[in-house]
Amino acid sequence: MRNIKIEIEYDGTNYCGWQIQQNGITIQGEITKALRELTGEEITIHGSGRTDAGAHAKNQVANFILENNIPTERLPLALNGILPGDITITNAAEVPVDFHARRSAIAKRYIYHIYESKYRSALLRNYSYHVHRKLNHSKMKEAAKMFIGTHDFRAFMASGSDVRGTVRTIYESDIVNKGKSLYIYIKGNGFLYNMVRIIVGTLVEIGLGKMQTDWIEQSFEIGDRAMAGHTAPPQGLFLDKVYYPADSL
Amino acid sequence: MRNIKIEIEYDGTNYCGWQIQQNGITIQGEITKALRELTGEEITIHGSGRTDAGAHAKNQVANFILENNIPTERLPLALNGILPGDITITNAAEVPVDFHARRSAIAKRYIYHIYESKYRSALLRNYSYHVHRKLNHSKMKEAAKMFIGTHDFRAFMASGSDVRGTVRTIYESDIVNKGKSLYIYIKGNGFLYNMVRIIVGTLVEIGLGKMQTDWIEQSFEIGDRAMAGHTAPPQGLFLDKVYYPADSL
Repeated sequence: MRNIKIEIEYDGTNYCGWQIQQNGITIQGEITKALRELTGEEITIHGSGRTDAGAHAKNQVANFILENNIPTERLPLALNGILPGDITITNAAEVPVDFHARRSAIAKRYIYHIYESKYRSALLRNYSYHVHRKLNHSKMKEAAKMFIGTHDFRAFMASGSDVRGTVRTIYESDIVNKGKSLYIYIKGNGFLYNMVRIIVGTLVEIGLGKMQTDWIEQSFEIGDRAMAGHTAPPQGLFLDKVYYPADSL
Repeated sequence: MRNIKIEIEYDGTNYCGWQIQQNGITIQGEITKALRELTGEEITIHGSGRTDAGAHAKNQVANFILENNIPTERLPLALNGILPGDITITNAAEVPVDFHARRSAIAKRYIYHIYESKYRSALLRNYSYHVHRKLNHSKMKEAAKMFIGTHDFRAFMASGSDVRGTVRTIYESDIVNKGKSLYIYIKGNGFLYNMVRIIVGTLVEIGLGKMQTDWIEQSFEIGDRAMAGHTAPPQGLFLDKVYYPADSL
């Protein structure tokens, strides 16, 4: 019996998100099925966290307890041979029994891709948020920096979410512009439901001149979801990396 | 009556290539249909050239004669509203009556994307050629340079092709490495059928150590398709730009 940590890359376009559900195809569901086919075992996979329908992962992490004695290093190829092409196991490693993909995680990094152009992109339609008006990049960069640090992110959480604490620490929040693409990099010790997408929606509204940068500070203070910007669409969102105690932040 | 030049971006994943055909959905067919729906006219679209099933275009060029008096600058949005999301008209301009997207073209540039990794990429599966073994980049760069200049490319053409001349001039042939991606940039005054994909296949075989760089020179001299490498798959291929006399090469 081994505790196996896997890393997964996926194109979320055709999935109802990470988390397994009764109706709808999910990433977790497909991997569970592939493990069942490979080993005959009914295995519970623990992901580092959910991702939304249509959102992607360059590197999601999960773990599960395996009875089967297939060599760990053979798992990626064996599972990839069963999984559909839009889900790939990129690594597998045996980890200590107390490792848990969600509970052991100390930070996560996301990349959000905005495509700024008069016309939509055919090639990037499933991998970016198309904004057809000009964005003020320097205002957005200034605003992005204001998320760094420890704040109460209650205003940046989908309303109706049920969580105990809403204070999170953001380590990195930056915007890089390449051609018509704006990449927002955000790393923190944890994220509330829809938090990255609401932060991006807020940055877009600031870039369009609809909101002022000081609204961010006010949103932290007042903590009302209505203060922050809209929820940016899922297809621009990529889970980039999950950090564990052994990783340098 | 106007001669209209359009620029088109497309994701070729779900198409049987550019050229209209009886059975199978094509880019040219979809644009013809959209123009019919918009104008009621039966319009013949002239593309700068074909692209293969599964291959993409960042910037394909086409022209057609339009009777309808819709303002030229309104064409992209009007057509994009009808076209599927994986085809986008990115520009439209009225051009002199003697402009012809294929006959007026003086050069084309392609980008070919190789993904070099032990495991396939879920996100890039439709946009790259997955090579799972290590490639010798410096050997490939050296080999890429050997295509520059005027050569008889008979060996780098799908066998059975029916063309008069097989001499072409290559202006640019370079390889750039970013992470696990290798981008091959190739610009020339014209390309034979499958020529870019056979050049890439040859570069990959050189990168794997299966072929020597001096085989390229020999392939030019002997002109036998069997001398050159395999035909790299279509999904890594992007038509990047079509050049006309007004463009600087």
